[in-house]
Amino acid sequence: MANNKITSRDVDFAKWYTDVVMAASLADYSNVKGCIVMEPNGYAIWESIQKNLDNMFKLTGHKNIAMPMLIPENLMKKEGDLINGFAPEVAWVTMGGEKVLEERLCIRPTSETLFSDYYSSKVKSYRDLPMKYNQWCSVMRWEKETRPFLRSREFWWQEGHTVHSTQAEAEEETKDMLNIYKKFFEEYLAIPVVAGRKTEKEKFAGACYTLTVEALMYNGVCLQSGTSHYFGQKFSKAYDIKFLNKNNELEYAYQTSWGVSSRMIGALIMVHSDDNGLVLPPYIAPTKVAIIPIGDSEELNVEVKEIENELKNLNITYYVDRSDKSPGFKFAEAEVNGIPVRIEVGLRDLQNNKITFARRDTGLKYTENLDINIGEYVLSLLDTIQKDMYEKAKSRRDKLTFTATNLDEVAKILNTQPGFIKADWCGSEECENKIKEIKGCKSRCILEDEKPLTGKCVCCGSDAKNTVIWGIQY
Amino acid sequence: MANNKITSRDVDFAKWYTDVVMAASLADYSNVKGCIVMEPNGYAIWESIQKNLDNMFKLTGHKNIAMPMLIPENLMKKEGDLINGFAPEVAWVTMGGEKVLEERLCIRPTSETLFSDYYSSKVKSYRDLPMKYNQWCSVMRWEKETRPFLRSREFWWQEGHTVHSTQAEAEEETKDMLNIYKKFFEEYLAIPVVAGRKTEKEKFAGACYTLTVEALMYNGVCLQSGTSHYFGQKFSKAYDIKFLNKNNELEYAYQTSWGVSSRMIGALIMVHSDDNGLVLPPYIAPTKVAIIPIGDSEELNVEVKEIENELKNLNITYYVDRSDKSPGFKFAEAEVNGIPVRIEVGLRDLQNNKITFARRDTGLKYTENLDINIGEYVLSLLDTIQKDMYEKAKSRRDKLTFTATNLDEVAKILNTQPGFIKADWCGSEECENKIKEIKGCKSRCILEDEKPLTGKCVCCGSDAKNTVIWGIQY
Repeated sequence: MANNKITSRDVDFAKWYTDVVMAASLADYSNVKGCIVMEPNGYAIWESIQKNLDNMFKLTGHKNIAMPMLIPENLMKKEGDLINGFAPEVAWVTMGGEKVLEERLCIRPTSETLFSDYYSSKVKSYRDLPMKYNQWCSVMRWEKETRPFLRSREFWWQEGHTVHSTQAEAEEETKDMLNIYKKFFEEYLAIPVVAGRKTEKEKFAGACYTLTVEALMYNGVCLQSGTSHYFGQKFSKAYDIKFLNKNNELEYAYQTSWGVSSRMIGALIMVHSDDNGLVLPPYIAPTKVAIIPIGDSEELNVEVKEIENELKNLNITYYVDRSDKSPGFKFAEAEVNGIPVRIEVGLRDLQNNKITFARRDTGLKYTENLDINIGEYVLSLLDTIQKDMYEKAKSRRDKLTFTATNLDEVAKILNTQPGFIKADWCGSEECENKIKEIKGCKSRCILEDEKPLTGKCVCCGSDAKNTVIWGIQY
Repeated sequence: MANNKITSRDVDFAKWYTDVVMAASLADYSNVKGCIVMEPNGYAIWESIQKNLDNMFKLTGHKNIAMPMLIPENLMKKEGDLINGFAPEVAWVTMGGEKVLEERLCIRPTSETLFSDYYSSKVKSYRDLPMKYNQWCSVMRWEKETRPFLRSREFWWQEGHTVHSTQAEAEEETKDMLNIYKKFFEEYLAIPVVAGRKTEKEKFAGACYTLTVEALMYNGVCLQSGTSHYFGQKFSKAYDIKFLNKNNELEYAYQTSWGVSSRMIGALIMVHSDDNGLVLPPYIAPTKVAIIPIGDSEELNVEVKEIENELKNLNITYYVDRSDKSPGFKFAEAEVNGIPVRIEVGLRDLQNNKITFARRDTGLKYTENLDINIGEYVLSLLDTIQKDMYEKAKSRRDKLTFTATNLDEVAKILNTQPGFIKADWCGSEECENKIKEIKGCKSRCILEDEKPLTGKCVCCGSDAKNTVIWGIQY
């Protein structure tokens, strides 16, 4: 509803976030504790994300599959690190109908175990490999607090799980999928991300290593946005996934997994949106254009019809608001819902051979001559908005990327204006823990192939092993 | 795998069914009791079904949404008939992490309760109505036996749930959605269905009445294929969904729900497929054409490239099998997987200016002159196959539709060759139960607007109220 009051993001960012979610009807709290309802406006964004990302997966040879949503406890326990990581936060099914089950089953928090069990019966020879499967589903983690899209017990995601006959190929896949995520964030979501490797402390339970893309929100808080894990033979040994290699010897297979979630909708809000509501990058916006006739006359209707035809011809999604609400109300509604372009068609404009455009990202409102080709014009305007939104997000991210050479500098940054903090690190968990004591500042990712800043650890001053991005996280 | 042995469907239909599921790699049993893995070949069919059906929903004003997968016991219990119907077969979550929950939650067996709870907070005025939402998800019912796609604890489906301000509009929706299902079965799945109303005994728990589409399998067994329920105010009274009507009075809203499931893939197998494996109607087949080069030469490659381009231009999905398997093996593989059209490109054919086509539905193999426009030709061939498959299924269905005027006739039909049995019925549950004693024969649907056969109940001989289709069901 456009007349909802939205708290200013500069006054109370957390409140602003929830206000935008509610005002744009993206999601609502449900009476199921810790779970949200993804409402039609939110789900349409999720469908748009799915469609584009799924296409990228398929073009790179991945196929979709559906695994059970339940995992028997014994199957879950085969890989020790994974169960240790997830045991405190899974939901357990202990009864079927009126009967207590002999073995309890958890609702999947992630599906490495199920995929590995499946692969163990399917993989026989190197000729069967690689198997590159993905599933779109929801998963459940028994979290305590809920923030729509950022943290809830149930959330929606995709999880890719692949098996390969060589380490090199599996590591290549791990990297390739991270690059797909990076490309998707930058080209579709208009969100710049930093790609790197997680520290041992922050990597996924059960992985040899985890690659990650990290984004920075408007308020300088970091969001882990997508991860890609290399498992080596850890799961294949635990779940007995062996294949006959080219030398006719049995060998354990090499695996990866990678995922992004409905959290991306949270990122879209926290990177692009403003005090008037949602702002969506055109390439991901389910509806690109709002056409708002001002008044009602034959002439007006003819013009609206013509605009509709031009947009339809170029497959540009739109709606016409002919409701009996006031123009101002309709403008605000298109704004709060993040429609990238608004076209106002008014009688006075028409008499002057004009038409009015408004950009959601900048708020700019201006007129154009009616003799432009509106379809082509809108298409190019959408491209411009997409590009501008990325540039704006990038320049803010760059402005909020700091460097630090000692803990005082880290503290000063976090107390003034948090952001990405680049700092050298010796590689010890002890230093990592010490840095965390400053407002919960965590390592986001190790920058590989990056020149060290000073060569000395920001915490202990001894020789640095890596340059790392640090920050406060969601 | 094309070299798998498939039992003949005329020898052992149940075994044949499972053999086709396995041989075409549609699904596999998992180590999660009662749950299957929908494998890439099966999931691709499900995606194709989803895409086409979802489009039909959206064109009729429905929007997608996502509800939680868990339902707290108290919320589940508000509507008495529903919980009584489902209580014996739900899975209960009783622990979150290490803690026993204060209130247990069931995994949704269906989501009337969640949608109603949601609508109760969203519906205020007749201006908010109708709300026509749908969700694609999996649901869980604690069944004992598993047959891939036909019966398993977890299955995939869509469930539409709508709220309206008048009874007439809600009843219209109930009927409209049944018609969409009928159209989808007949036009996309090439499966003829009979539409009608369920008896009181067979209707959905909690519904005022249930409409259904019923299909007949190759072996004469019936499959309930899609249902659409009218709820009147039953759920709105239990969940307090009230709106201000045009007279400014509070009124309980009118609701519907409707669903079809991954069972449709079972129907595709049991209606169309044969002893060589899967047969898919072209409009739903994820891949329409298999191109199989026989041999390897420059000339051959040029021709294959040209065919590929023609298919691509018309968005016809295809694959080229260049593996080192034998041609015979490749043919069998395309067959077992149900690819509607196979194109064989051989050197000898090329020298004679010929190209070979094989139809999966009829097995017919023939040559055409190379100078045809292959894209257009294939497009029209796919249309022909689609039409022929529907006609073939319909003529078999018609041949297996019998009439009966007394119980001896019913028994004779079921003992000889089961099928749809049309018979008049007095409307009493007593007679319905008696008929069921004959090999479990159940009422499939009441044919509305159908002229009675004799006017006398097939069971008790008293005056008939309805003409009903009866049969043995999956």
